[in-house]
Amino acid sequence: MGLLGVAYVLWQFKIILGYDRGNAAMQAIAEAIQQGASAFLNREYRVLAVFVAIVASVISTFLQWQTALCFVVGAIASAGAGYLGMYVAVRANVRTAAAASRGLHEGLRVAFGSGAVMGMSVVSFSLIGMTVLYLIFNGDPNQLTYVTGFGFGASSIALFARVGGGIYTKAADVGADLVGKVEKGIPEDDPRNPAVIADNVGDNVGDVAGMGADLFESYSGSIIAAATLGATLGTEKAAAFIGLPFLVAAVGVLSSLFGIYMVTGEEKDPTEATTKIYPGYSLWIRYSHHLRRFVAKIDERATLEDLLTALRRSVWGASAAVLALSLLAVLVSGVSLNYWLVILVGLIAGNGIAYATEYFTSYTDKPTLAIAHATQTGPATTIIQGMAVGMLSTLLPVLITAAAILLSIWLGFKADGTMAAGLYAVALSGVGMLSTLGVTLATDAYGPVADNAGGIAEMAHLPGEVRHRTDALDSLGNTTAATGKGFAIGSAVLTALALLAAYVSAAKIETLNILGPTMLPGILIGAMMPYLFSALTMMAVGKAAHAIVMEVRRQFHEIPGLMEGTAQPDYKSCVGISTEGALREMILPGALAVVVPIVIGHVLGKEALAGFLIGTMSSGFLLAVMMANAGGAWDNAKKWIETGQYGGKGSDAHKAAVVGDTVGDPFKDTSGPSLNILIKLMTIVSLVFATSFGSGWLSF
Amino acid sequence: MGLLGVAYVLWQFKIILGYDRGNAAMQAIAEAIQQGASAFLNREYRVLAVFVAIVASVISTFLQWQTALCFVVGAIASAGAGYLGMYVAVRANVRTAAAASRGLHEGLRVAFGSGAVMGMSVVSFSLIGMTVLYLIFNGDPNQLTYVTGFGFGASSIALFARVGGGIYTKAADVGADLVGKVEKGIPEDDPRNPAVIADNVGDNVGDVAGMGADLFESYSGSIIAAATLGATLGTEKAAAFIGLPFLVAAVGVLSSLFGIYMVTGEEKDPTEATTKIYPGYSLWIRYSHHLRRFVAKIDERATLEDLLTALRRSVWGASAAVLALSLLAVLVSGVSLNYWLVILVGLIAGNGIAYATEYFTSYTDKPTLAIAHATQTGPATTIIQGMAVGMLSTLLPVLITAAAILLSIWLGFKADGTMAAGLYAVALSGVGMLSTLGVTLATDAYGPVADNAGGIAEMAHLPGEVRHRTDALDSLGNTTAATGKGFAIGSAVLTALALLAAYVSAAKIETLNILGPTMLPGILIGAMMPYLFSALTMMAVGKAAHAIVMEVRRQFHEIPGLMEGTAQPDYKSCVGISTEGALREMILPGALAVVVPIVIGHVLGKEALAGFLIGTMSSGFLLAVMMANAGGAWDNAKKWIETGQYGGKGSDAHKAAVVGDTVGDPFKDTSGPSLNILIKLMTIVSLVFATSFGSGWLSF
Repeated sequence: MGLLGVAYVLWQFKIILGYDRGNAAMQAIAEAIQQGASAFLNREYRVLAVFVAIVASVISTFLQWQTALCFVVGAIASAGAGYLGMYVAVRANVRTAAAASRGLHEGLRVAFGSGAVMGMSVVSFSLIGMTVLYLIFNGDPNQLTYVTGFGFGASSIALFARVGGGIYTKAADVGADLVGKVEKGIPEDDPRNPAVIADNVGDNVGDVAGMGADLFESYSGSIIAAATLGATLGTEKAAAFIGLPFLVAAVGVLSSLFGIYMVTGEEKDPTEATTKIYPGYSLWIRYSHHLRRFVAKIDERATLEDLLTALRRSVWGASAAVLALSLLAVLVSGVSLNYWLVILVGLIAGNGIAYATEYFTSYTDKPTLAIAHATQTGPATTIIQGMAVGMLSTLLPVLITAAAILLSIWLGFKADGTMAAGLYAVALSGVGMLSTLGVTLATDAYGPVADNAGGIAEMAHLPGEVRHRTDALDSLGNTTAATGKGFAIGSAVLTALALLAAYVSAAKIETLNILGPTMLPGILIGAMMPYLFSALTMMAVGKAAHAIVMEVRRQFHEIPGLMEGTAQPDYKSCVGISTEGALREMILPGALAVVVPIVIGHVLGKEALAGFLIGTMSSGFLLAVMMANAGGAWDNAKKWIETGQYGGKGSDAHKAAVVGDTVGDPFKDTSGPSLNILIKLMTIVSLVFATSFGSGWLSF
Repeated sequence: MGLLGVAYVLWQFKIILGYDRGNAAMQAIAEAIQQGASAFLNREYRVLAVFVAIVASVISTFLQWQTALCFVVGAIASAGAGYLGMYVAVRANVRTAAAASRGLHEGLRVAFGSGAVMGMSVVSFSLIGMTVLYLIFNGDPNQLTYVTGFGFGASSIALFARVGGGIYTKAADVGADLVGKVEKGIPEDDPRNPAVIADNVGDNVGDVAGMGADLFESYSGSIIAAATLGATLGTEKAAAFIGLPFLVAAVGVLSSLFGIYMVTGEEKDPTEATTKIYPGYSLWIRYSHHLRRFVAKIDERATLEDLLTALRRSVWGASAAVLALSLLAVLVSGVSLNYWLVILVGLIAGNGIAYATEYFTSYTDKPTLAIAHATQTGPATTIIQGMAVGMLSTLLPVLITAAAILLSIWLGFKADGTMAAGLYAVALSGVGMLSTLGVTLATDAYGPVADNAGGIAEMAHLPGEVRHRTDALDSLGNTTAATGKGFAIGSAVLTALALLAAYVSAAKIETLNILGPTMLPGILIGAMMPYLFSALTMMAVGKAAHAIVMEVRRQFHEIPGLMEGTAQPDYKSCVGISTEGALREMILPGALAVVVPIVIGHVLGKEALAGFLIGTMSSGFLLAVMMANAGGAWDNAKKWIETGQYGGKGSDAHKAAVVGDTVGDPFKDTSGPSLNILIKLMTIVSLVFATSFGSGWLSF
């Protein structure tokens, strides 16, 4: 299934490259974005290569070389998926702009195709990588321990990519907006703004490459956690338990392809030749578009509403397919049907969290409208209301996740009578939640491509209707991105809990008493980590954004004719500042995430480390949801006002809303999403080093 | 010692009432503030009476009537201390304004005297109440269970008083500022602003009565937790362990009086008559002021710097006295000297957290200056930097608290060889931290009095130098308030942990496995509670502030001559809106805090409830520190700019700083401090109802 996914990626890639690249002006802009993005990613990967080399030698010195090998493979696979996703995204953006000149659905097809390349690369690379490593070490009793290294590698890359990309994109975004929109009063993506290319590069390195690496690690982590716990069940069905998450993931690849086809498929006449060679193909071509229309109801005359329905149905269609196929997988594995229900629980919980996220961040619902209402009394009340909405929005995700954990444990416990089976079920539930990642990531990752297309349309002075179409696609992407976030957040907790259980088993911890001597200090320090981490990343954005603001102001001041449009700004200096800032500032938070768990494990002991991880998990989950949703709600409150409410663009209410949106930028695109990775990275570091921890230097 | 404290309160009260009340204009304004404050507190207490009656009947129905009695006594004692503190504060404010006409130290003496009344009422009422109840139920095996009801009563009142008072004060403050300062450009406390009286009333009901009730519960809770755990040690020294926290608190009263005397004492000539009656009195009068000068170095020509030193030394002097006297207490009790070290640990940790708080919120240090720097690029970067500073500021308090817990457990464990002794030591450490509350609360509670005095000086058009002096006292109060907050935050975690340990013992929980089936759902829901609670209180402030803004705008619009100063605003309508808003909005969050733990205990079971409490404790501690410090830092960044930096008052940087300050208002004075109470209230509710919980309806 992994190979099928790779085949799809190559095929879709070729299709995208075949689309029209637009006029010379558009190509020149796209070229600048491509160069900036590649330059950043190349430099980022060079820094990460050093990090990977250091950690790999530490692992092979203190643990086993096999784990180090898996670590390196995981890092490379993650980086590869991120690179490929970005590579196609910076080529799809200009083609989306060109396609949007022809129609809304045309534009969606290109942008979504690019998202699908990202989504399918992530799931295929992950599945192939883990399966191959698993087969290589077959028969070795430490097989699964080694493969955990793959997850460690993926998580490390994910954290750096999210943090580095997040700092880059938000520094450029905030910097461009603060001078351009607020001080100079020029529109978004205006070519006179010296930071505009950096801003567009940022969408690619942060929202595409960063997000790809992020979900690569979620996906890999959930499968590794489930397989590792499956091995600890110790029954004669161990092989079935280990294999099941791989099977579920594999049927998920097929289901995701089905979902993607619902959106991108084109109606074709069956040609004589192909019909003769593959007799079934004729039937498929003749009837598949009926199925597609039944599920997704889109054609060339589709409205925005239709497209949203199409995207939603493609995800639901994929979910339904996963359910049907994983029933087969469970039956083939010979385990209890309860484990199929567990997958159902995961999918329902993921959709539930997605729904809650959408409710709290969409401007058709009360919470975001309350923020828009608060803009009337200025930026301060806008921020207060937004923070309150963000905090309140944690209620449903927490209750849904808690219910999913409880139900999964109960189903597993009832099936095999042990708590270990219950924890395995939690892990499997996370795999179920992420099984449709191929398509959910596509619905998430096409947004930045549409955003970029809009920027290119603006800079290349394309007709207004093109920009309207790309804006429509972008706002559609914002809505569907909520779904992606819901799955990412929910699965992070389930996977982290499963990895924690694997850690407790690997570290041979007998009892985990909350009132043990080092436990509460561990929990408190763990709960503090997400705050420390967010503080560092937010200050990094602030610092880099400040440098951009100064540079943009300097250029407006020193380059004569820039404001009048008769002179060219120096885009490269802003790209350079963002690159330097992001690379410099990602080191400390990234290093902390790897080093602190090891220090805690040695100083406070292995039990306290478990407490530490619990603390990080609970506090980080809450903070991540709060930041992501407050940011999303501020963004959409601003968009609502821009539709003409409360005075529309340029009014005092709009200015207050822009302040909210700017505060929300690092919340939702830098600090918030990084926390999901932080939680899992610290848990997987603990799992990899589990055997090296004792009762701690401070034990008594 | 409690009676000695009450005697001091009465004596100091008489002294304050004896001071000059200023001119007729000042008296009229003070009258309006008094009426507004009394009206609010009377109505608040009427609502609380209903709540107390309901809960008391629930307790006496399902548990014991004795616990219900203690609950009622605790509620009354807490409300009484809060009422007394506010009663003297609304009389000291006008007298402080009058005294400030004569000099800085004169003003401090009146304001600080008022704070001392609050501080000593809190510790005395608490000590007397608990001691009497303890003696009444002497011999009853459930003695300590009953007295826990006292803590429950105190915590309930504290939560409502903090939330209600916090909503009142911040709604009035934000509402007055948004229209007055931002829209109309009139200064703070301008008599033309219709919300100005409500704003000044708010200082009294929120920052005096609310804070008094808050620390009443911290103080009572820490002693109850230690005594309850002392009883579980089950050794022959049980009586000594139970008595020790009372003894430490008692010597704390004496030490606090010493500390207070350092600031308020006046030099007197020994008269013939008194010297003859009390021979030692002559010596005391002759030499005590040397001691005072040695410690506090203040006299009538004191500068602001001197006064700050004096306040600091008074706290240190009291701490030194507690250490010396509690050494005696430990020796008399016959327990290990390790427990004396534990008290030392508590005092050092409290001072350490206070120092860290001051570093992160004072404008002489880097973090706040970084926020001031960020104001140059507008309100958005001001908020981002402030949030980052708030998050970063959690690092030291967490590490200090973790170290204090670890050290205390170790000392207790080494002394008596059991983990129970270690947890008792944690509780005792909390008692040590709060032992000097009489004086630390005085340094905290005089700030709002000075703030009010400034408002009265402004409204009564007193000479500018008076306002300068009250401003100086106010800013001094802001600095010393950091100390009070440090002790409150640190002790909250220690006390909550001790109460949790008492709960685990009372609920007869055998093992508390973190990976138990219902544990993680419990932890997650617990971690969510502080977010839910903060969201509700912040939205309440936003809603009430919005109503005030609308009313103030209406008055400026509809009352001719108001802006010109020829017509009187309708102060009462704003007072009424704040009162109604605060009372209506405090019900839901307050009720949640009492009901949710009981629901969790019954539905998920007693083990999950322990996880729930751990979740609340860790996530609430972090959120509380973050909110309090971000708010304090924004406040002081604004004050720094008002000293003339970055363009001073009226500049764009100042406008951005005002946005930060306004966002920080509910952070630092409503939501943040309420979380400390929430943590302990939910733990004490669980402790009181501990015996009623089983393994939960959802257990399997």
